[in-house]
Amino acid sequence: MRVKSFKKKSRSDWLNLFEIAYEDKAGGDRSWQLASRRQTPRCISGDFDIPDAVVIVPYHFSSGKLVLIKEYRVPLADYQYGFPAGLIDPGETIESAVERELREETGLTLERVKRIGPPIYSSPGMSDESICMVYVECDGTPSNEANEGTEDISVIMVSKTEAAALLNVKDVKFDAKAWLTLSAYVQSGSF
Amino acid sequence: MRVKSFKKKSRSDWLNLFEIAYEDKAGGDRSWQLASRRQTPRCISGDFDIPDAVVIVPYHFSSGKLVLIKEYRVPLADYQYGFPAGLIDPGETIESAVERELREETGLTLERVKRIGPPIYSSPGMSDESICMVYVECDGTPSNEANEGTEDISVIMVSKTEAAALLNVKDVKFDAKAWLTLSAYVQSGSF
Repeated sequence: MRVKSFKKKSRSDWLNLFEIAYEDKAGGDRSWQLASRRQTPRCISGDFDIPDAVVIVPYHFSSGKLVLIKEYRVPLADYQYGFPAGLIDPGETIESAVERELREETGLTLERVKRIGPPIYSSPGMSDESICMVYVECDGTPSNEANEGTEDISVIMVSKTEAAALLNVKDVKFDAKAWLTLSAYVQSGSF
Repeated sequence: MRVKSFKKKSRSDWLNLFEIAYEDKAGGDRSWQLASRRQTPRCISGDFDIPDAVVIVPYHFSSGKLVLIKEYRVPLADYQYGFPAGLIDPGETIESAVERELREETGLTLERVKRIGPPIYSSPGMSDESICMVYVECDGTPSNEANEGTEDISVIMVSKTEAAALLNVKDVKFDAKAWLTLSAYVQSGSF
């Protein structure tokens, strides 16, 4: 298979729809639709090194709990449980983005970055969006005073038992990465 | 916050870009861009019960290994490691979609569905796409004879040690859900 060219099918600031012309394994001409935060999608630019966003898994040192956020998400018209996360600003390092997003979304202080994962893809069938998981230790008192104007976020800290209870509440909407991480935490005690 | 109305900003068959008008927490008028596989996005229709797709975590009974696929993904212009997965056809049950996708993508036979997770969201900042994780046991011999014309898939079965080695290979592109599941498997032995 081989990607040949692209057409931009929308004119938006943050996210656009693209149609990619590609050759299938039998040599036939096909097209694929994808959403990208880039002006030129990654499959054309070849730029796969820097992820779009960080997803932070924060262990709160003094309470011994994992930090989640409950955040209003327009695409879900509802609150969603997930980890603190955000787009990496141009020129910003992963560590700086983590420190900034953790402070803005939770009011907590980054103490130590334990592990930075590689760029991984949120939904590679429909988008080139990539994120990296960043496992950190943090401390301080949760606060939403640094939320931006469009953010509506509550901080929720969970022990293993509280995580298990939260996973069992009906009709709670979870981000996939948070659901998988919490499920592993509940099952094995590690994350 | 409150979602008010939507505009469709593209005209594609499989995926479209939408602009959602919403009221922020201060009562101000704002807009949010999202990609959806629906003709009417979920935040307008309120239809959150049926996920778009299944993501299958297959335990291969006779080898004692986890089943991954290596699949060409146009949005990445490259091969990607992930789990067998696919859209649920209209009217299809989750179990039927799992049995069908497992057969088409890997040639393996579904033996038992162990657990079906709730709908969770791949990237709730940019899309209303939802998937459910389905943990199954399967058996048989891997084959790509049932691949569709646009599919280019190899089946890869990994022990815990092989999963750890795969996670350490540089520049391998992983689906986020597969990376998180494999990482938990390597760390704790369970998934």
